[in-house]
Amino acid sequence: MTKTPNPLRDPRDKRLPRVAGPCVLVLFGVTGDLSRKKLLPAIYDLANRGLLPPGFSLVGFARRDWDHQDFRQIAYESVKEHARTPFREDVWRHLAEGMHFVPGEFGDPGAFDALAMAAKELDETRGTGGNYAFYLSIPPKNFPQVVEQLQRSGLADRKQGSWRRVIIEKPFGHDLASAQELNDTVHRVFPEESIFRIDHYLGKETVQNILALRFANSMFEPIWNRSYVDHVQITMAEDIGIGGRAGYYDGIGAARDVIQNHLLQLLALTAMEEPTSFSAEAVRAEKAKILSSVRVPGDLDVATARGQYAAGWQGGVKVRGYLEEDGIPPHSRTETYAAIKLEIDNRRWAGVPFYLRTGKRLSRRVTEVALVFQQAPHLPFSLTDTEELGENTLVMRVQPDEGITLRFGSKVPGTSMEIRDVNMDFAYGESFTESSPEAYERLLLDVLIGDPPLFPRQEEVELSWRILDPIEEHWAAPSGPLNQYKSGGYGPDSADDLMARDGRAWRRL
Amino acid sequence: MTKTPNPLRDPRDKRLPRVAGPCVLVLFGVTGDLSRKKLLPAIYDLANRGLLPPGFSLVGFARRDWDHQDFRQIAYESVKEHARTPFREDVWRHLAEGMHFVPGEFGDPGAFDALAMAAKELDETRGTGGNYAFYLSIPPKNFPQVVEQLQRSGLADRKQGSWRRVIIEKPFGHDLASAQELNDTVHRVFPEESIFRIDHYLGKETVQNILALRFANSMFEPIWNRSYVDHVQITMAEDIGIGGRAGYYDGIGAARDVIQNHLLQLLALTAMEEPTSFSAEAVRAEKAKILSSVRVPGDLDVATARGQYAAGWQGGVKVRGYLEEDGIPPHSRTETYAAIKLEIDNRRWAGVPFYLRTGKRLSRRVTEVALVFQQAPHLPFSLTDTEELGENTLVMRVQPDEGITLRFGSKVPGTSMEIRDVNMDFAYGESFTESSPEAYERLLLDVLIGDPPLFPRQEEVELSWRILDPIEEHWAAPSGPLNQYKSGGYGPDSADDLMARDGRAWRRL
Repeated sequence: MTKTPNPLRDPRDKRLPRVAGPCVLVLFGVTGDLSRKKLLPAIYDLANRGLLPPGFSLVGFARRDWDHQDFRQIAYESVKEHARTPFREDVWRHLAEGMHFVPGEFGDPGAFDALAMAAKELDETRGTGGNYAFYLSIPPKNFPQVVEQLQRSGLADRKQGSWRRVIIEKPFGHDLASAQELNDTVHRVFPEESIFRIDHYLGKETVQNILALRFANSMFEPIWNRSYVDHVQITMAEDIGIGGRAGYYDGIGAARDVIQNHLLQLLALTAMEEPTSFSAEAVRAEKAKILSSVRVPGDLDVATARGQYAAGWQGGVKVRGYLEEDGIPPHSRTETYAAIKLEIDNRRWAGVPFYLRTGKRLSRRVTEVALVFQQAPHLPFSLTDTEELGENTLVMRVQPDEGITLRFGSKVPGTSMEIRDVNMDFAYGESFTESSPEAYERLLLDVLIGDPPLFPRQEEVELSWRILDPIEEHWAAPSGPLNQYKSGGYGPDSADDLMARDGRAWRRL
Repeated sequence: MTKTPNPLRDPRDKRLPRVAGPCVLVLFGVTGDLSRKKLLPAIYDLANRGLLPPGFSLVGFARRDWDHQDFRQIAYESVKEHARTPFREDVWRHLAEGMHFVPGEFGDPGAFDALAMAAKELDETRGTGGNYAFYLSIPPKNFPQVVEQLQRSGLADRKQGSWRRVIIEKPFGHDLASAQELNDTVHRVFPEESIFRIDHYLGKETVQNILALRFANSMFEPIWNRSYVDHVQITMAEDIGIGGRAGYYDGIGAARDVIQNHLLQLLALTAMEEPTSFSAEAVRAEKAKILSSVRVPGDLDVATARGQYAAGWQGGVKVRGYLEEDGIPPHSRTETYAAIKLEIDNRRWAGVPFYLRTGKRLSRRVTEVALVFQQAPHLPFSLTDTEELGENTLVMRVQPDEGITLRFGSKVPGTSMEIRDVNMDFAYGESFTESSPEAYERLLLDVLIGDPPLFPRQEEVELSWRILDPIEEHWAAPSGPLNQYKSGGYGPDSADDLMARDGRAWRRL
């Protein structure tokens, strides 16, 4: 067996725990939903698992008249409500000691000077050694101000033996041009290796397991190609509507919100060649190769479908249509459902369509990648015996009900050779006693450790926009497709037609 | 999708039930264990499932002073105790009406004349149309007499438009020469196509599912060969000892009792090429090709292991060793455990060892076929992360706990890329509401229908003895291997050594 030691680890150490070194994490936008529901609880959970260094310090920055104690109180409530690990008073107290708050506006030099002072003080009092991570949990329009102030105040200057990192969240622009502009803004101050773009899907256990499944095993890769795979379906279905996100969502739509990042990343992980190692460079290079090989079919009326949810019933409750949602213009043409057929022009996948779909207000919440295999080339059975035999399918269930399902034909018990599809199942929850870290936990830890394989680099972001831009342009035309679909259903008929034209069907939601 | 219609079926009929036509089944040895525990209950279960024709008749023949009523009473008790389907009075009454008994010795012409008369009468009164099946559930030494009497009395003569079939049970001889002799005896009266050799393992759902799994699906066959399979393990482990079978077992041993038939048939089904159809000729031809390609390694001391159970503990009970069992000579050299390494000299399997093992008084009862795959050719993981990663394995569980397990590596939830083996499982019992017919049910029905794919033909029997004969000869030498092993354990150390020499290990029982 050939084993490739990771050069970053000492092979004499058995499963060296990945622990972050001393540092300060500065949270911009600490009053927002993401901070409260995900980031602060994730930080506590990391502390609780013993993965943060003793001197770890957290500085909140926001336009609020808070003192340290207020911040700690807010964080305490958020941890109590949303943390996944049990609450331990001693862990909390230790963490809270390192929590500070700096009030201020994003454009206020004084506030950033105060922030710089606070960081410096922490270096001295808590030994954080000048290592700073800046989490920009703020609207992209504020990026230029913040980045400029980080530079002006000296916070962005890396000193000998220390590091500076900046974390940004999607949306990484709304098309190629805006993504490049956004990137230029951040790059003016931070080099590419210091920029951590968070696609929280990549932090999910089940997404990382796509790589483990493919490359730690010998039995899947041999059939993971055009000789055996008929097509691939990548689905992210939501049962909820846009909720209170009208301001963000309208004008963006399902494709920019989900396909450009999550689904294209799932496609890349599913389709990519084996990286030589799991180093960031190796993994990102393989993903970029796939994204560069993606071809958008020529006739976009045939290869895409697009819809808006209409009123309907969901979970026994009558729900409004998209155009009736608060804050949505009555003639909005933003899609809440998008389906796209893509092809990958390389030796492994030529001729194998990848069908991507995402939508809101569908019948069920599910994210999965399904490889649908070709029929057996010959069936030595009688015609009637294989009526209930479909295609072999391997489903990687990203969420919920995380796991893997293999669907294949088996003999029906009885005196004839009747074959019917059955499922073989592996469920994460049943096989492991270890609790899964939340995606943000994993990703925050990776930022603090400086381990970048799970973060898309700018090249991937741009390649994804190159795929989506012509589709968005086609859709934006006055004659562009847009179909209503009933809430609680399976999406617009046009999406079913897209598959039917190819003699295929979506997996049932 | 290419579908091959079975020429024996009308493709317009949706799942035509396989029902036997009118016939008489004559059971020789009706007082024996097999009749009482398996055959009579199976006949009732078939009747209960509506698979026997209305006029179906059963004639018992034995050296007992019974009348029809006695026979029916005995059968009734056996059905009540051992049938798998619920007891229904009307089904039983209908079946019992067709049950007759003929008393007699195997060499008594008068008894056979009476049998011929009874059969003829059934043809007239119950419309069985001269179709007779003779089940020889008797010791092989009585075959010549019975076969001769069947001929003499005219029972074996096939009349226009009717059929005669004879069913024989293993052992089909104890070596090649005796198997040929036995065969000649039966062939003197019955042509090969009328002879149904029962290996009840082939009637098991899970054994038939090996073919369904392989050939109804597209995802398994591509890796079912020497490029991906490291080796194959075929196991039939029993936790019981020889029980009351000393007279049969001693001098025969584990290899003749189990490997020559069950395990070599499992090997053939696992290794064979796809048959063009499931016709008897096509399936048997592929099995014969495999059995002809089997090579017994040259150094039998290295390629085989052999043992006898010693005293020990099983299920909390102290049990005797083989040599202390009632009826076993104190210096017997009969083996109760046998392990053999075989190779298959063809393009698909060259270089892939097939390890067969069977034994009594082992820790657990299990019959399974396990394909152990090669390690992934390259692992882009760090050394410590794959410590708990073994070989991918596909296990077809024949009994108990019938089903299929796939063992593969999955990411352990947590913040590092640690890989551990997990199981993905398919259980017959959970996936189908249909109850599995007992192996004898299936096989009896096949005999009555005249559907022979699940019965080994003489060629396969002889090929199997050709494989076993040199091994038995080696073992029979005074210097031949024979090791004691503790009851309730995993077999003799020599069997572990056999694997260890190849750098492999048996799957844990």
